[in-house]
Amino acid sequence: MAEIDRMLLANEEWASRFPGALAARPARAVAVVACMDSRMPLFGLLGLAVGDAHVIRNAGGVVTDDTIRSLTISQHLLGTREIVLVHHTECGLEATTEQAFADQVEQATGHRPPWPVRAFSDVDADVRESMRLLRESPYLLSHEVRGTVYDVATGRLREVV
Amino acid sequence: MAEIDRMLLANEEWASRFPGALAARPARAVAVVACMDSRMPLFGLLGLAVGDAHVIRNAGGVVTDDTIRSLTISQHLLGTREIVLVHHTECGLEATTEQAFADQVEQATGHRPPWPVRAFSDVDADVRESMRLLRESPYLLSHEVRGTVYDVATGRLREVV
Repeated sequence: MAEIDRMLLANEEWASRFPGALAARPARAVAVVACMDSRMPLFGLLGLAVGDAHVIRNAGGVVTDDTIRSLTISQHLLGTREIVLVHHTECGLEATTEQAFADQVEQATGHRPPWPVRAFSDVDADVRESMRLLRESPYLLSHEVRGTVYDVATGRLREVV
Repeated sequence: MAEIDRMLLANEEWASRFPGALAARPARAVAVVACMDSRMPLFGLLGLAVGDAHVIRNAGGVVTDDTIRSLTISQHLLGTREIVLVHHTECGLEATTEQAFADQVEQATGHRPPWPVRAFSDVDADVRESMRLLRESPYLLSHEVRGTVYDVATGRLREVV
């Protein structure tokens, strides 16, 4: 069975117990920017309820033009004012380099990616760089951002200061 | 209390019941691309377990360079082979236009965004456009993609065919 068919089946159970509609504006006026890693169920590990927060995720949880686009929409259209970053230990982006990744994709597909993969070697430094990029963005209404690292071996979240 | 402090507190409870470490490779070899909307707890509504899937989210769940970057990493480094898109009803991007949004940000901040907001008026058409963009990407190993729309009023997921 294709993965989507398993999901559609599982969703029937979800819809049968659906608790009801909520407002689009995040109740806690916060946006989370996190890595796509499969081991991070953000609602659970951050104690979020449905409707509480926007959740933006990409490889690494890094700040790209698309992250800025999403946060600008989140703040200007839907009223969020705080940003929380969630990077994590044992990230796939720590296990490669720009050159190694581009070589790997080119060898497998015949096409070399024109964009950087955004590899990093120090997760705390990458969180700080993400905070810096967000604080410098001229499109955001609020630059209130704090960053964390999630330990995938213990489930513990640690703030980067 | 700042939102992050509430999250750090909630995480202590999570970590105390942490079930243990998992492999980085998604167990179901699938990546989900979804909107950042606060009303979509994807693990619950898709029936995903921790460790099952990569989760990529941005405003609209649209396909950008960053989405392609994340999926390329997901497939080449971490072995996923299926892609499932999750757009939804009552999206904030249906309630604005490129011009109205750029005007709004410029009036509030003095800076006009150089990137498109990716507004859309027909959610099914936007899912189909996202599927087209992914099928045409030369960097992916697998172009097996299917798309859905989540109804935020009923909790029901519908495939776009």
